[in-house]
Amino acid sequence: MLEGVMDDVVEPAGEDLQLPRVLAALAEPNRLATVRYVARSGESCCSEVIQEAGLAMTKSTFSHHLRILREAGVLTKRIQGTKGFTRLRKDDLDLRFPGLMDAIIDAENQDLHVERSRDSASSATPS
Amino acid sequence: MLEGVMDDVVEPAGEDLQLPRVLAALAEPNRLATVRYVARSGESCCSEVIQEAGLAMTKSTFSHHLRILREAGVLTKRIQGTKGFTRLRKDDLDLRFPGLMDAIIDAENQDLHVERSRDSASSATPS
Repeated sequence: MLEGVMDDVVEPAGEDLQLPRVLAALAEPNRLATVRYVARSGESCCSEVIQEAGLAMTKSTFSHHLRILREAGVLTKRIQGTKGFTRLRKDDLDLRFPGLMDAIIDAENQDLHVERSRDSASSATPS
Repeated sequence: MLEGVMDDVVEPAGEDLQLPRVLAALAEPNRLATVRYVARSGESCCSEVIQEAGLAMTKSTFSHHLRILREAGVLTKRIQGTKGFTRLRKDDLDLRFPGLMDAIIDAENQDLHVERSRDSASSATPS
């Protein structure tokens, strides 16, 4: 089996999504950043997500996080050739947990805004 | 110091609530049940929560879960005499993460509804 094509991750069906597992998958800053990026950008090449979402991690560590998000049913992955593409399972998540993903994506944007405001405030301090 | 009165848990200020930590605190079925019960019932005596929320656990295990919820800023605890009372920090949570707690509480209710429907279906099977 070719590396990059093999994939043993089991993604749950929509009706089998479990709230504790979804919340646990989202309870990590890099995974939140991944979900936020994919929610905004639509289906994305995995290597693009690492770079564009500003994740300071190896491809192997990203695969670990992606596995957790896929096994919880938050993201799904499609393989085309040697590349992997991932997207948010927004419809499945909205059906089971109405409003949850919007609240988390918006909250995360707000969080980043707060962080950036703090950064601006500290960098504006005279040196 | 009297047992039952001592309390070394640090509850974060509203502006210091962190989304990953809140989600991690909620990512456990017993803690979800606790939050759902307190959201519905308002400020509740801790021993009442264990019983009424149907938590099959000791007081010590409940204290462990309550600590995680308090340290994340989801619940707060007030001590009166030798009794502890806990309530949801709904205003603080709504301010930082609009819609999140409502989505989680509603989703959890829906989850229970699904579970009960499944139970009814299986118990309706002729024996």
